[in-house]
Amino acid sequence: MKDSKMKTQLKTIDGSIVAPQGFLASGVFCDIKRLGTGKGSNKGQKRDLALILSEVPATVAGMFTTNQVCAAPVKVCLPRVAQGTAQAIVANSGNANACTGRQGLKDALEMTALAAKEFHLPDEHVLVASTGRIGVTLPMANVRAGIRQAAQWLGSDPQHGDEAAEAIMTSDTKAKQIAVEFRLGGKAVRLGGICKGAGMIQPGMSMTGRRPATRSLHATMLCFITTDATIQRGPLQAALQEAVAQSFNRITVDGDMSTNDTVFILANGLAANPELGTRNSELGTFQIALNHVCLELAKMIVRDGEGVTRFVTVRVTGARTSAGAEAAARAVANSALVKTSWFGGDPNWGRIIDALGYSAATVVEEKVDIGYSTPGSRKMLWSLRRGQPTKATFKQLCAAVAAKEFDLHINLNLGNADALIYAADLTEEYVDFNKGDVSDPGSLGG
Amino acid sequence: MKDSKMKTQLKTIDGSIVAPQGFLASGVFCDIKRLGTGKGSNKGQKRDLALILSEVPATVAGMFTTNQVCAAPVKVCLPRVAQGTAQAIVANSGNANACTGRQGLKDALEMTALAAKEFHLPDEHVLVASTGRIGVTLPMANVRAGIRQAAQWLGSDPQHGDEAAEAIMTSDTKAKQIAVEFRLGGKAVRLGGICKGAGMIQPGMSMTGRRPATRSLHATMLCFITTDATIQRGPLQAALQEAVAQSFNRITVDGDMSTNDTVFILANGLAANPELGTRNSELGTFQIALNHVCLELAKMIVRDGEGVTRFVTVRVTGARTSAGAEAAARAVANSALVKTSWFGGDPNWGRIIDALGYSAATVVEEKVDIGYSTPGSRKMLWSLRRGQPTKATFKQLCAAVAAKEFDLHINLNLGNADALIYAADLTEEYVDFNKGDVSDPGSLGG
Repeated sequence: MKDSKMKTQLKTIDGSIVAPQGFLASGVFCDIKRLGTGKGSNKGQKRDLALILSEVPATVAGMFTTNQVCAAPVKVCLPRVAQGTAQAIVANSGNANACTGRQGLKDALEMTALAAKEFHLPDEHVLVASTGRIGVTLPMANVRAGIRQAAQWLGSDPQHGDEAAEAIMTSDTKAKQIAVEFRLGGKAVRLGGICKGAGMIQPGMSMTGRRPATRSLHATMLCFITTDATIQRGPLQAALQEAVAQSFNRITVDGDMSTNDTVFILANGLAANPELGTRNSELGTFQIALNHVCLELAKMIVRDGEGVTRFVTVRVTGARTSAGAEAAARAVANSALVKTSWFGGDPNWGRIIDALGYSAATVVEEKVDIGYSTPGSRKMLWSLRRGQPTKATFKQLCAAVAAKEFDLHINLNLGNADALIYAADLTEEYVDFNKGDVSDPGSLGG
Repeated sequence: MKDSKMKTQLKTIDGSIVAPQGFLASGVFCDIKRLGTGKGSNKGQKRDLALILSEVPATVAGMFTTNQVCAAPVKVCLPRVAQGTAQAIVANSGNANACTGRQGLKDALEMTALAAKEFHLPDEHVLVASTGRIGVTLPMANVRAGIRQAAQWLGSDPQHGDEAAEAIMTSDTKAKQIAVEFRLGGKAVRLGGICKGAGMIQPGMSMTGRRPATRSLHATMLCFITTDATIQRGPLQAALQEAVAQSFNRITVDGDMSTNDTVFILANGLAANPELGTRNSELGTFQIALNHVCLELAKMIVRDGEGVTRFVTVRVTGARTSAGAEAAARAVANSALVKTSWFGGDPNWGRIIDALGYSAATVVEEKVDIGYSTPGSRKMLWSLRRGQPTKATFKQLCAAVAAKEFDLHINLNLGNADALIYAADLTEEYVDFNKGDVSDPGSLGG
């Protein structure tokens, strides 16, 4: 069966993480940033603490930042995910609990212990994640009150998913969520997810938090996925790795990899499909659904990146090696000059070929093709073929780059390796946002 | 003799490239950008073509971009510098003559041939350099008229140096020039230089334009240095490599390495000092003078970078390897989030340690020191010691980062390797400038 055919069997549904059977969620405001206003009232304040609970123990898989400096919640969750079972996730925005030393570790552990106590779970079955400013210890009195409140407000209406999605937002302007339904072994199975992104976005996650021997570098992004599928731990981790490799690890907003990047998936088996194992032919269907959920969420992160006005899919083909293809795509996607030219709607192929030339990829000027297409269209507008400007007019090229979303095609014409990166432009709004306001330290992002 | 003692023997003088005996220069406006206004009048238009001439043949050395995509003038000059003798340099701004194919090569060769004809020199004794937009062929009719005019206007008054310095500027807001006098073997020797920078600045030059096995990646920057010292070709090239390694290859504005980066030095011997060879004890004095000239010019490039408001010297110590020290310093110096926080005057050490963590350097969070000092002062303000925030107040740290120039000290405490990078902040003005104006293609930078 073709992927495209399978994809048509995915039905988009409401409810994100509470769409699958047996999942509850909530999001509350507990004043993590110590704004000192309206604590617990939820009136007019963005929620900042989320709770997700499965009614029964779930199989768990996870992916973590490969930044050598990683946050306390990452350190706590690495072994918990490895043991394979979890039932709840507690997450906060407004504070990354990173670079907070022993106190940070203690606080992350206490967050899981508090949630575990609420639901009479072993501590080890609770996961934790944080996002926000680095280097500030959590206001634990507020966090404790928040967890108690969030536990009381749990529910499985779509609104509860919305509130959890809001609670993990930092500089995000929109909540990011999705859910799909598909069939496995005659049973309806659901898969839902929420995520956050915005800045410090170029994830490079691995299962162990350690860098693979050959790897690409590269938000705070958090993503929590729930499913009622019945699936073994090994295939679940493998499926998540494949899905993340094709989605979150393919995006960049500003080229900065966070200390906190985390993706969790909980599979509680309540759909009662025949268990998916390594040899199960329906694993492919699950993979396609998971790929779809991760990719859509990843694209939402880029589109809602800080100050972003352009969503550009950088497609490198014809590289000599996969590492070269990746290096070429990331050099272009992270070049300050290329990104500002996109913001300006300037089809400046000179900056693109300049970035290719200084990348670690082998590049021969006389072989390079550079072109544009509208996403989903096969119609190409080439600006450069074999290193030579084409007859495309400046006006035509400007029109291609004026689009809010376009595909940039780069063919190095040297080999068969390719790579794809979802990128964004660099705008004055990004700079304005990230320069912060030192008169208000609470406003300063991670 | 100590470097510092030697440095005190350098006398700063006027005249930049025309300060050394036997050098002439000029700068004219010939409308390289085809603005179509006031051609040849020099009235109110920034000059865009420079000429430098030594009255006698000079020993030459050069350094070139290691970008795999390099401009036509770089291709022309690589073999000419290698043969060791040159007498003139012709350079233009407003057009990089990069990615211009065979026509570009033809045009670069013609520029040298025209200058050679004016002065009855062999073509091979004329060097050429260009900076500006990539991918547009030169308006040769304008260039030809410019070279003829520049040849007539040559002179050795300081004003002629000023005009040549102006002619190579692109987005630079100031002409960059320096000259020093010192003594070698009882004779007064002079060394002068002009350069340009502003954007696409992270040079990584080598003598051959090829990347050394272990190298750092990374404007268009052009630098032309003249001296009346008598020095052999080998020591001259070695001295230039050392000086560039400690200056131009240590700066970054936006992390983009240009297709055109070039440094030339012409030594015409008219000071009549005893010839400097490899075993000459006075070579050290020449090296110190050249290091000083290159470093001062390199710092001028960073300070005058597009939209730059902060000049930050990033000093990494205690790295396990030199490559690691370099990688750590460049990760911090090129992080969009670190650079925007500098612009905002925000002492956000979380972003700094985040960048260290994703760099290729080995980093252990619990060992990292981060601190600030005023350039030239030994008084340190630490924000982080061994991964733990110090008692420095947020106000104190803000004051350190509010300074227009400060040193950022990072000690990884893992080894003995160190590295230093001269960096700048990232501002809304940079983005505004580089987004260009597509309604006026002539305004778009390289």
